[in-house]
Amino acid sequence: MYPPERILMGPGPSDVHPRVREALARPLLGHLDPDFTPLLDEIAGGLRTAFGTANRVTFPVSGTGSAGMEAALVNLVEPGEEVVVGVAGVFGGRMAEVARRAGARVHTVEAPWGRIVEPEAFVEEVARRRPAVAALVHAETSTGVHQPVGEIGAALAGGDTLLLLDCVTSLAGVEVAVDAWGVDVAYAGTQKCLSVPPGLAPVTFSDRAVAKVRARQAPVQSWYLDLTLLLGYLDAEGGRTYHHTAPIAMLYGLAEGLALVAEEGLEERWARHARLGGQLQAGLVDLGLELLAQEGHRLPQLTTVALPEGVDEAAWRRRLLVEHGLEVGAGLGDFAGRAWRIGLMGHTCAERNVLLLLDALERLLGEPR
Amino acid sequence: MYPPERILMGPGPSDVHPRVREALARPLLGHLDPDFTPLLDEIAGGLRTAFGTANRVTFPVSGTGSAGMEAALVNLVEPGEEVVVGVAGVFGGRMAEVARRAGARVHTVEAPWGRIVEPEAFVEEVARRRPAVAALVHAETSTGVHQPVGEIGAALAGGDTLLLLDCVTSLAGVEVAVDAWGVDVAYAGTQKCLSVPPGLAPVTFSDRAVAKVRARQAPVQSWYLDLTLLLGYLDAEGGRTYHHTAPIAMLYGLAEGLALVAEEGLEERWARHARLGGQLQAGLVDLGLELLAQEGHRLPQLTTVALPEGVDEAAWRRRLLVEHGLEVGAGLGDFAGRAWRIGLMGHTCAERNVLLLLDALERLLGEPR
Repeated sequence: MYPPERILMGPGPSDVHPRVREALARPLLGHLDPDFTPLLDEIAGGLRTAFGTANRVTFPVSGTGSAGMEAALVNLVEPGEEVVVGVAGVFGGRMAEVARRAGARVHTVEAPWGRIVEPEAFVEEVARRRPAVAALVHAETSTGVHQPVGEIGAALAGGDTLLLLDCVTSLAGVEVAVDAWGVDVAYAGTQKCLSVPPGLAPVTFSDRAVAKVRARQAPVQSWYLDLTLLLGYLDAEGGRTYHHTAPIAMLYGLAEGLALVAEEGLEERWARHARLGGQLQAGLVDLGLELLAQEGHRLPQLTTVALPEGVDEAAWRRRLLVEHGLEVGAGLGDFAGRAWRIGLMGHTCAERNVLLLLDALERLLGEPR
Repeated sequence: MYPPERILMGPGPSDVHPRVREALARPLLGHLDPDFTPLLDEIAGGLRTAFGTANRVTFPVSGTGSAGMEAALVNLVEPGEEVVVGVAGVFGGRMAEVARRAGARVHTVEAPWGRIVEPEAFVEEVARRRPAVAALVHAETSTGVHQPVGEIGAALAGGDTLLLLDCVTSLAGVEVAVDAWGVDVAYAGTQKCLSVPPGLAPVTFSDRAVAKVRARQAPVQSWYLDLTLLLGYLDAEGGRTYHHTAPIAMLYGLAEGLALVAEEGLEERWARHARLGGQLQAGLVDLGLELLAQEGHRLPQLTTVALPEGVDEAAWRRRLLVEHGLEVGAGLGDFAGRAWRIGLMGHTCAERNVLLLLDALERLLGEPR
């Protein structure tokens, strides 16, 4: 099967740069080959830049973004500990569920779909519960909302609660500043603004987060994701001890994707996303459509937009795919059946794609209904 | 970084066929694209053939072989249940550890390194403990031992114990007959005899295994690996509901790897491994070296061989890599420091590689020491 031509403008995966695709096809080296392991250090360096952190423990988990979420929570949380989670969409809800399965007593701070989790309410709940972990989604992929984090981090500074941030859709698309914001653990996916295929989950752990994992009473419930075991391989200081076989081809791809980020410059990349996301959102409003994320807190790389009353969104989405080769995503949860999620992530984030999407949508809207 | 030329003759990864490498580099489709999801069915079909099963629930887990092990155990085992595990090397030991972390009460049936787990002893322990799950490694990658399974499966038939088999290194290299042997759950890796890069773990669950998972009292501790959630996406009957983003490029590669297996023919593939593994092992004996796996139970695709007394195995291994571009694996556990693991898996399993390895080794042995 050779895939038909698509422009991936959904909530991820995004289009993969040809250089990353070429990297995936390189011949394998063994995961313990002395010519391979330096690539792990190179990847760690690129990820530190993208996360805005000096954390030594920064690496890609061998699974997709959801495995990154699970790695963060099952390592940090011990059974019976309190966890506060901000929930304003699917991925906040997923964090709460994963934390529960790790044995946490979960308290949620909720917000309506399309709104941010109010920092004040979140900080108050943390002050009340004094949880081991407080968790938020930075870029809620189900709503297109850009959660403010800095003021929450500042309010939590000096306390014992570890701040955990889901950066699956934010990393390399908008500013992520793990150290400046006081985030202890963050995770992401490769298939969003990094434009590497899905299959790896970059994560970063602060020293105090690592110390908490090392001081656990109960073993980490997942052997595969156990940070203390992973460190033996990931870190030259650990002696590159075999844990599981690293996904080598995907790591080639991630290294190339991070090289592209470095060549563009991280701030220039954020600016590109901001500019083109703004152009798309203005264009959608010009077409008379309603944006569903709260004004002032819209992600440029992921836009939720309501379709006119009476439109069969699935049929229109199908027509975009088949007639125009453009993939957009369906709404989830509160937005299911009435909205789309339009991604402009990484390599997909190009003006030609904004124009193609707006043109195709204008034609659909212009048809007699 | 463009990788230096290597022939991967270690315990995995093996060399990847150029057609698989080309497949990895294809442009992405979305994981919900109607042109992508038929590939999941094609992969399931190819895996059913390789596993020797008609199990409906047969799919690749989005992680490496160890994630497949974890997926099998955390779904099957509920906290407090008894599990019997055959341990005669690293991977049996890993199964026991993963089962413990899933809350199982684990009983091991042990055998010395290089020996099979005696079927009679294993069956007796199962009869005594009446465990929920009995687990074995089919191809113990740390010892090169080929565990007999058929007689154990026959002895367990009709009982309530589910039989779980680690096929990471056996799948598509030697016969695997999940249905004929009465195996309920099996898992594998892609980077061994399938010669696809590491990153996916084929698994198969019998109907009664699926029924056990569906009837669980406690939720599966891993959200990422929860079979009941995965089925919603993997199966057209589940409506292709989004769970996590499938690792699309790796799935392209796996589909191509399975196509190569089908073109060669599964039995012809087993015969190729048997013939060339036999040739390698005979050649090693001719060089005066000792094979460490029990005679009559040697895997053709993974050979453990002792080096002469006084040889610095790491230095020789390094010389093979640097001077000959040949990667072999270090011994683990009881075999550490005195043995190698030589793989002839999938695309690596070619006569030219046998000859190159034997020639290089003969030269090393002929040097003054």
